[in-house]
Amino acid sequence: MYPNLITHIRKFVDLSDEQADLVLEHAKLLQIKKNDMLLRGGQVCRASYFVEKGGLCMYFINDKGVEKITHFVIENWWLSDYLSLGSNNPSAFNIRAFENAEVYSLDFHAQELLCRKLPQLERYFRLMMQRGYGAHQFRIKLMREFNSEQYYHHFRDLYPTFIQRIPQYMLASFLGLTPEYLSELRKKDAPRTS
Amino acid sequence: MYPNLITHIRKFVDLSDEQADLVLEHAKLLQIKKNDMLLRGGQVCRASYFVEKGGLCMYFINDKGVEKITHFVIENWWLSDYLSLGSNNPSAFNIRAFENAEVYSLDFHAQELLCRKLPQLERYFRLMMQRGYGAHQFRIKLMREFNSEQYYHHFRDLYPTFIQRIPQYMLASFLGLTPEYLSELRKKDAPRTS
Repeated sequence: MYPNLITHIRKFVDLSDEQADLVLEHAKLLQIKKNDMLLRGGQVCRASYFVEKGGLCMYFINDKGVEKITHFVIENWWLSDYLSLGSNNPSAFNIRAFENAEVYSLDFHAQELLCRKLPQLERYFRLMMQRGYGAHQFRIKLMREFNSEQYYHHFRDLYPTFIQRIPQYMLASFLGLTPEYLSELRKKDAPRTS
Repeated sequence: MYPNLITHIRKFVDLSDEQADLVLEHAKLLQIKKNDMLLRGGQVCRASYFVEKGGLCMYFINDKGVEKITHFVIENWWLSDYLSLGSNNPSAFNIRAFENAEVYSLDFHAQELLCRKLPQLERYFRLMMQRGYGAHQFRIKLMREFNSEQYYHHFRDLYPTFIQRIPQYMLASFLGLTPEYLSELRKKDAPRTS
């Protein structure tokens, strides 16, 4: 049985069993523990990560030394700092596991090699990048349109299961709320969901 | 002499003259006037736009009927609503010219056809999407990190020429400032640049 990574690629492009094996030869499966780091700010980002199981978050540290989470990904999503990947620009972000996770790490050079050997992967990655880009355009709209409380309600209605998995203090960091205020908002939710 | 569109593609992938002609057969050159619309909110976005000359902006209209500009592009940039493009999802955005412009409009189906005929275009568009995605990840960091005044200073330092081209009320809308407050900030800039 093939891992989620292969099933996911096959949703978008054809991939024979032989080609799937080639992908798996180049992508490295990492078993990581909660809080293990995959990228540290200041390093050049050298790989993109596909979440087989568990979850990752991406964050920066502001000038007061406070972590600000900007991205969460769970199963079947890719994560990388795409401005740093494949360049010599040090990343402004950190990536770490917020749960124990199984992650395929695809090194930038391995990705380039795979795309040369299996040109359909250019299409797969183009579609992944386009999806991520579009989601970020829309997210910028939400950030301009909503205050943090409205953003929480939007996020809760759209990703109810996801919200249960994320520790409260991390969700607060992502939404730009204090953990105390988020806790108040969630208490108000309770009667509606019980 | 080939247009900027072809020169731009050739920076990233090989394209023979014959192949360049094929691209130009499928991309439609539009001559548009300042304030002409290319996309209206509620419509499905059916094309992506490459700016040959001039500039485009993308914006949404909030619940008070106020335009909020989220994106500007000038020469050699692509713009589309990538969440709506190729889907049946109506766009949450509008796109219009903020200057008289020459724009290549590449219909979604024409892009699919071109990518089948010229597989190197999958790579070109993958790299364009990756660049846009990375820039948006970084922009979300800036939006979390900076207030509107700091964001203005960052934007001014990074894109000094660009800022001269954008009408002040549009720049204010993009930065989330009132035009009056932006005008105050720009007055403070003046002694440093004279």
